Amino acid sequence: MNVDGRWRRTIELADDRASVIVLDQARLPHEIAWMRLATLADVAHAIRDMHIRGAPLIGATAAYGVAIALRDNPDSLDEACRVLAATRPTAINLRWALDEMRTKLADVPRSERAAAAFAHAAKICDDDVATCEAIGNHGLAVIRAIATQHPGRPVRVLTHCNAGWLATVDWGTALAPIYKAHEAGIPIDVWVDETRPRNQGLLTAWELAQHGVPHTLIADNAGGHYMQRGQVDLCIVGTDRTTRHGDVCNKIGTYLKAVAAHDCGVPFYAAVPSSSIDWSIDEPSQIPIEERSADEVRLIAGRNAAGEPARVQITTGPVANPAFDVTPHRLVTGLITERGIAAATREGLASLFPEHARS
Amino acid sequence: MNVDGRWRRTIELADDRASVIVLDQARLPHEIAWMRLATLADVAHAIRDMHIRGAPLIGATAAYGVAIALRDNPDSLDEACRVLAATRPTAINLRWALDEMRTKLADVPRSERAAAAFAHAAKICDDDVATCEAIGNHGLAVIRAIATQHPGRPVRVLTHCNAGWLATVDWGTALAPIYKAHEAGIPIDVWVDETRPRNQGLLTAWELAQHGVPHTLIADNAGGHYMQRGQVDLCIVGTDRTTRHGDVCNKIGTYLKAVAAHDCGVPFYAAVPSSSIDWSIDEPSQIPIEERSADEVRLIAGRNAAGEPARVQITTGPVANPAFDVTPHRLVTGLITERGIAAATREGLASLFPEHARS
Repeated sequence: MNVDGRWRRTIELADDRASVIVLDQARLPHEIAWMRLATLADVAHAIRDMHIRGAPLIGATAAYGVAIALRDNPDSLDEACRVLAATRPTAINLRWALDEMRTKLADVPRSERAAAAFAHAAKICDDDVATCEAIGNHGLAVIRAIATQHPGRPVRVLTHCNAGWLATVDWGTALAPIYKAHEAGIPIDVWVDETRPRNQGLLTAWELAQHGVPHTLIADNAGGHYMQRGQVDLCIVGTDRTTRHGDVCNKIGTYLKAVAAHDCGVPFYAAVPSSSIDWSIDEPSQIPIEERSADEVRLIAGRNAAGEPARVQITTGPVANPAFDVTPHRLVTGLITERGIAAATREGLASLFPEHARS
Repeated sequence: MNVDGRWRRTIELADDRASVIVLDQARLPHEIAWMRLATLADVAHAIRDMHIRGAPLIGATAAYGVAIALRDNPDSLDEACRVLAATRPTAINLRWALDEMRTKLADVPRSERAAAAFAHAAKICDDDVATCEAIGNHGLAVIRAIATQHPGRPVRVLTHCNAGWLATVDWGTALAPIYKAHEAGIPIDVWVDETRPRNQGLLTAWELAQHGVPHTLIADNAGGHYMQRGQVDLCIVGTDRTTRHGDVCNKIGTYLKAVAAHDCGVPFYAAVPSSSIDWSIDEPSQIPIEERSADEVRLIAGRNAAGEPARVQITTGPVANPAFDVTPHRLVTGLITERGIAAATREGLASLFPEHARS
């Protein structure tokens, strides 16, 4: 998508073709800085400390992490996968990307392993872009249908966290239908949840602004009120891991919006690339919920009175900080995948992905 | 309640007995500062800019505002009520307190009006304390019943915003049962919603800490997850205005917690002093929802790296900031009033307050 008017990806091969450049999301939107990841340790740190984030981008970056590790040591495949898998526990794409790399590289001769790894990481990135575009086109149909019902006013979409361009290689998942609608000339207005504690809503607002999409930032508390008052036409969120039954694990607070949408009769969609579906588990309680640092709640980043990047500490008291919750499938209207929109049920997903179906 | 180990009220008559001292809640918890309100303009400013806040305390402070105005000009009753009524649109206690003052002072001779006004403002404060204590005792029974079912572990109560000591003259509304349980030796652990955008949860955490009550601050997004996981025994919130049908208008985000509590089978109570019941309206849509400044979302107060009070600006983009929402009575388990716990229905409230009942 556009950054300062130029179309870019969130992760790009560096000029040396042996490392990558990523947009530092820990500093956005208060600073725009690209950072270079040149070693396995760089990549692991960037994922763990959320310099890059978003389930699909975590997967793509981890793939390049494997390639960078193999560049330094062709025998380090297992070690690289072990280090990278430990960076974030919830996003299934991380495990998916590492499994992909391991499968593709297992039988590659030692001398060709690094080159093959870079090539396959590039393919994972390209595939992610294609997946997101496909999700965008399927979601566009939902938005277009609402626009047809309400001519003369924008379609008002609520989203939580950032499942946009910044969370993927390009286009985004939840935001892809919004970008596609915007490009198709359908008027859109986006309610952007702030998404405490890390305020990823600021990333969403930033990328929508870069792309010229009308939007309004709101406190996480406000979305239910707007749903009650008929000011939300639909919700679209991303996912870090979706079960084969259609239960959607996503950023903490997603469940609150889903249960309110259900109460208010507002359609609630999750944008789900198949790489984020965990076909192996049945129970949402089997998904590990990452408990992150209390400092994420305590410290808030912005700009100080002098306009410089700064943080304030809002409390020194006891804090808890679960990073994800699970929205039960009964609250989900549909799952927008790269193959089309599935009902949020085992049957719905199995019909689109029969190769993964099991009884 | 305790401040620095000494029992205080949030509003106290100053030594000159012609003005009042209040704890400046716009600076809490980052600074503890008492401010003196010596003129009608001081009082109006303190309410409008939320140096004092919380529906019951707004009412009590407005009553003293009338007294202070009459001290300067015994003929200013109408003008004082007009100025004060315009400060905040949603909290019904403001209108209730001004009506009380007007009724009591209408027939008082000009020369005695100021003294009578100070006396009646003091009575409104004393009555508020008694009301809050009664709410505390009725709510204590609910907490005690849960404690009996789960011996050996704390009762885990989730609350939103600040409906504590700081929102009233003493004790609080939603927090009064918690303080009463703590004093009765029942182990309590409080999940404190941060309550963006103004972070009144920091006030709740501060006053619970001052009083020694165990608590954990969480992002507003986290409460639903803890309810899903069985880690919330009950929710108690305050109210700015409750309809005679039991619909509860309270701080933005309350509805999200109520709908999640309903979904998870967690009891959801509102602490409702009768002064916050609007007997005149039937429809929640008749309650004006205050839209407050975008700066409340954009600017966050805390302490900077040097430990000094400071603010950061998190965005310069478009923002919306509705301050309240309405929780429909079907999601409310009960209304804890000073006369006992009512079902959140017209019949429930009418049975406790027959003097207000009408068909």
